[in-house]
Amino acid sequence: MKKIGIVGGTGYTGVELMRLLAHHPEVEVVAMTSRGEAGKRVDALYPSLRGHTDLVFSDPGEADLGACDLVFFATPNGIAMNEAPALLAKGVRVVDLAADYRIRDLDVWSRWYGMEHASPEWVEKAAYGLPELYRDEIRDAQLVANPGCHVTATTLAMLPLMGMDWIGHDRIVADTKSGASGAGRSAAVHTLMAEAGESVRTYAAAGHRHQPEIRQTLESVSGREIGLTFLPHLVPMVRGIESSVYLPLTGEPTKAVQALYERYYADEPFVDVMPPGSHPETRSVRGNNLCRMAIHRPMDGPMLVVSSVIDNLVKGAAGQAVQNMNLMLGCREDAGLEQVALSP
Amino acid sequence: MKKIGIVGGTGYTGVELMRLLAHHPEVEVVAMTSRGEAGKRVDALYPSLRGHTDLVFSDPGEADLGACDLVFFATPNGIAMNEAPALLAKGVRVVDLAADYRIRDLDVWSRWYGMEHASPEWVEKAAYGLPELYRDEIRDAQLVANPGCHVTATTLAMLPLMGMDWIGHDRIVADTKSGASGAGRSAAVHTLMAEAGESVRTYAAAGHRHQPEIRQTLESVSGREIGLTFLPHLVPMVRGIESSVYLPLTGEPTKAVQALYERYYADEPFVDVMPPGSHPETRSVRGNNLCRMAIHRPMDGPMLVVSSVIDNLVKGAAGQAVQNMNLMLGCREDAGLEQVALSP
Amino acid sequence: MKKIGIVGGTGYTGVELMRLLAHHPEVEVVAMTSRGEAGKRVDALYPSLRGHTDLVFSDPGEADLGACDLVFFATPNGIAMNEAPALLAKGVRVVDLAADYRIRDLDVWSRWYGMEHASPEWVEKAAYGLPELYRDEIRDAQLVANPGCHVTATTLAMLPLMGMDWIGHDRIVADTKSGASGAGRSAAVHTLMAEAGESVRTYAAAGHRHQPEIRQTLESVSGREIGLTFLPHLVPMVRGIESSVYLPLTGEPTKAVQALYERYYADEPFVDVMPPGSHPETRSVRGNNLCRMAIHRPMDGPMLVVSSVIDNLVKGAAGQAVQNMNLMLGCREDAGLEQVALSP
Amino acid sequence: MKKIGIVGGTGYTGVELMRLLAHHPEVEVVAMTSRGEAGKRVDALYPSLRGHTDLVFSDPGEADLGACDLVFFATPNGIAMNEAPALLAKGVRVVDLAADYRIRDLDVWSRWYGMEHASPEWVEKAAYGLPELYRDEIRDAQLVANPGCHVTATTLAMLPLMGMDWIGHDRIVADTKSGASGAGRSAAVHTLMAEAGESVRTYAAAGHRHQPEIRQTLESVSGREIGLTFLPHLVPMVRGIESSVYLPLTGEPTKAVQALYERYYADEPFVDVMPPGSHPETRSVRGNNLCRMAIHRPMDGPMLVVSSVIDNLVKGAAGQAVQNMNLMLGCREDAGLEQVALSP
Repeated sequence: MKKIGIVGGTGYTGVELMRLLAHHPEVEVVAMTSRGEAGKRVDALYPSLRGHTDLVFSDPGEADLGACDLVFFATPNGIAMNEAPALLAKGVRVVDLAADYRIRDLDVWSRWYGMEHASPEWVEKAAYGLPELYRDEIRDAQLVANPGCHVTATTLAMLPLMGMDWIGHDRIVADTKSGASGAGRSAAVHTLMAEAGESVRTYAAAGHRHQPEIRQTLESVSGREIGLTFLPHLVPMVRGIESSVYLPLTGEPTKAVQALYERYYADEPFVDVMPPGSHPETRSVRGNNLCRMAIHRPMDGPMLVVSSVIDNLVKGAAGQAVQNMNLMLGCREDAGLEQVALSP
Repeated sequence: MKKIGIVGGTGYTGVELMRLLAHHPEVEVVAMTSRGEAGKRVDALYPSLRGHTDLVFSDPGEADLGACDLVFFATPNGIAMNEAPALLAKGVRVVDLAADYRIRDLDVWSRWYGMEHASPEWVEKAAYGLPELYRDEIRDAQLVANPGCHVTATTLAMLPLMGMDWIGHDRIVADTKSGASGAGRSAAVHTLMAEAGESVRTYAAAGHRHQPEIRQTLESVSGREIGLTFLPHLVPMVRGIESSVYLPLTGEPTKAVQALYERYYADEPFVDVMPPGSHPETRSVRGNNLCRMAIHRPMDGPMLVVSSVIDNLVKGAAGQAVQNMNLMLGCREDAGLEQVALSP
Repeated sequence: MKKIGIVGGTGYTGVELMRLLAHHPEVEVVAMTSRGEAGKRVDALYPSLRGHTDLVFSDPGEADLGACDLVFFATPNGIAMNEAPALLAKGVRVVDLAADYRIRDLDVWSRWYGMEHASPEWVEKAAYGLPELYRDEIRDAQLVANPGCHVTATTLAMLPLMGMDWIGHDRIVADTKSGASGAGRSAAVHTLMAEAGESVRTYAAAGHRHQPEIRQTLESVSGREIGLTFLPHLVPMVRGIESSVYLPLTGEPTKAVQALYERYYADEPFVDVMPPGSHPETRSVRGNNLCRMAIHRPMDGPMLVVSSVIDNLVKGAAGQAVQNMNLMLGCREDAGLEQVALSP
Repeated sequence: MKKIGIVGGTGYTGVELMRLLAHHPEVEVVAMTSRGEAGKRVDALYPSLRGHTDLVFSDPGEADLGACDLVFFATPNGIAMNEAPALLAKGVRVVDLAADYRIRDLDVWSRWYGMEHASPEWVEKAAYGLPELYRDEIRDAQLVANPGCHVTATTLAMLPLMGMDWIGHDRIVADTKSGASGAGRSAAVHTLMAEAGESVRTYAAAGHRHQPEIRQTLESVSGREIGLTFLPHLVPMVRGIESSVYLPLTGEPTKAVQALYERYYADEPFVDVMPPGSHPETRSVRGNNLCRMAIHRPMDGPMLVVSSVIDNLVKGAAGQAVQNMNLMLGCREDAGLEQVALSP
């Protein structure tokens, strides 16, 4: 069994990693660190794990993460860039679920994350953990930057159309709707049940960190400049993201779009292109690692619309991280990720 | 007291009319019809009305609606076009909350509603019940067509920009999120709590009836052809619609957009333009008749975004109907509509 | 207009007082204090109040509360007992929405609230603000202790049966279900949407502060010792409390229980006894001040069950406080409280 | 691989059986019948199953269920009693998820279910599918009656105390809270999102079918007459049941109650007795087959309270049915049931 460590295990991505790895055939979580909860059983904080683990949170300073084959950083932004390099230097492989290594352009990164980067040398060495695009790089990488949740749903919805001459790359709109778990497990007022329940609202309308991350990938793939208006919304549920992407047609598609998508994702284990006329529901991927999508051309008009759904904690975070780990460690790509979605 | 009748009172717009009219100073509901519930007390079906009414549902054939000053049709599409003309001929004034008289072009109407129109002569005489645009026509109209719910939130979000040379009228996107009460109070599978709870999805992505209704108004106001991609979503809540409208900029705005909106709606009792940087929440208008909106230009990019919220049963249906009634009967425009929103 | 002050206006009871008093015909809120938000417009914190108030939060030290006719304390437990006495000494009347003056027995109070009482002399002078029992005392009181939310739903469900020889007073069970707004508007983990959504759980099963408060009233009314097992539950909604109370029958009722309840509450403006066979829904009182209840004897067995619903922020807090204020100031008892419940 | 059939696969228990059996190592679902959906792919009705099955709904008359090793009846009450006997006669083993074979007393059954029993001879031969009590009988049974959902949570909460002299068996109260999926996937008004959302209410307060089923088991185990007041509540969520059971103490417990529970369920794979002071959440068992419980004695008073949670579609229906199937077919008892709960 390969040895796995999790740094910062008290948040939702930490418990979700534990859920997914509980029955993984080839790896074992041997350490889970938490400054605040050191000494406490993991299943005392997360009763859903009772019977599945005997782990005790360890102090970050004392955990022997250097003995791990791979370590997940399930920490807030700005931690991995300081703590991962020491592990990487020991040859440990790392998947960072935060944003530290996602953006290549350090100036852009600093502007959006409000800090200077502490380990810029690792930014260029990191693979971007979207297996549908970078499977080979991920296999060989020592450090993988796991993509953002809105990013994953939105990017996958557009990839097959990038670079097509009949797509207007300069006026793309992505309107996403996210459940409250995306905000993490930190005491806060605006995501209280009494604040976020029975209500919908936008947030970060002036600009959101996931916009440059989506753009970076789309520009790299299309070789064109991307104009993207990205607007996230908070909806009253726990899990799930739906992204509705609107792409202007500048001419008639020269290929059947549905077939284009089906072919593009034909071999992908975790992308499901639904039949024409479908309306993907977030619940249809609740708890599993799929990105499920459908393509529409409303009223045969001048826009293509792709509706794409993921579970923000799975394909949008811990599940994609496990998929990346599987690639890095040479495991079956869907090991630990076979769960059927919980619906209803 | 003016006498008011409600045809088809068992749905959500029926009970909502009763709620709003319960304390109206100048009108009294004297008849509420229902084929299925005739003889039953209204408050037996809607316990929230206990103590506020002694009305009994009457059979549509037996209710003396001809003696009313004004009758609301809170019926499914296709009823008012058959039943309203007889009342109108008697001089009764009518507000139709369904779609029968909303669309001027009878062919367009027939295509979307799947029936031939039964009283086309009244379509051209009807006023479109959006007071912010047609206040004078509504005052004098004998028949008012109350706008659709998605329509109200979306149209009001765009009105001040219509006709501006720096707005691209051909590639507008409206992405709306609606609570489940918009689907009405009819036994159905897809809006069961166990189906619609904890999940988000699009619907009618191929085309929705509210698209031509929005276009009709915007084209009339702007004098231009409108290209509108409209995509509604079902979110897991009971009340509320949020509409995010994306308008391409084709040049630099020649006016300060925030000020433009504030001036346009300065005298409107039921439109609230929030300060720059705001993110309207649907709960901030829960139970009241406001349309509340904020304008953004994300990342100073090539799109304006307006986020607009209403309560789908109030400004999106019964509240706007009461506002129209007030105009028609010469009451204070906000009579019966003074409630503060229920938040949290 | 009478002048009203609100101390601690940033919580849910503060905004709810503002909502209810917005259209009150005889009072005006002239000051709302907040240490943290002083200088900020009230409607900037609560956009639902836009258009209904121009108030600005004032610093508690600077607000001229002494000039008010009545001041509400919408503060955490332990504030009013320190700050109210100075106002009371100036002749200002006070309604405390917290628990400081609810419990007569100072030892009991200290045990449950973990502090020594700072103004015990006012505990005995305070009227307990349950108008259904203490209307006359409230009218004359200078200080009123507004009851707890679980307490109101549960106490009203039992009052008519207290002292009956055929009721076993020693083994009463009250099982309550509360929405998340009952926990207040403070940053916390356990009431996050992602924690409290789509889940039900008990809390405070070892003992909850509302138990002694309920007992105090029931013992005073019945003249008997009350054995009460009280267990609250958190359910995934924003507003509302349902209390199911189980009362053992020790003999056949000598009176028709339904009639007993109807008679007991016949003149109460804010208690609604539903017809036999009813199942009260919390939404049927959403936003209004009613306590609505139904009485059952399941399977003609040895228990009476009363299901009672309130809106925890209205009859369970701010609404009852306004009802008390109306009594104290000689206003119509339902002034400001005429809203029809928001259902659906 | 053993061959499995599912009769009536369009409801929630049908899709849940498919979810749980998708990765079962020893069985394969070979037929799923539906009168209404025959010819349609199962994953077209339930997109969450896309990629996990190629099954097509077959007409009940045409499916070769006689070739199955075991058939689940996921049908409404009253179907299995008519259709199962023919299969049983062919030697097929049957698990009925409906209520047809749960109640031994045919008169009691007829009173609650409103029909005469069509195959009374099989009622006495059926094993009651609560493995914690009847594991051996289930192993050998040809027909197993799967318990009700409220029943499972409530019965398991009380078993260890049955027959204790210090428990008052005559005045037990069980107050349960259920998500809306318990009402099934049938078009209905009262379980619409707009009706059941943001609200709590009791139902069937006059008496519910699960009461006699619980009583039957408890009387059989305790040898005493059981007085049980059982009151179910509908709460605004999709999955989960919490049962709070109140048991009167008639004397001091002669055993440590916590230890009693821990010992009683020590070897049970699907019952988890939490540490003292715990408050089980329904989400902690979402999607898995556990019944998780905690025991309290509030304020050291005269009642024991057990709070017990299950997923109504898993341990309350399909999961327990799979557990029974595993016993009947000699598979590992937890085969197909290893999922970690989905929390948050």
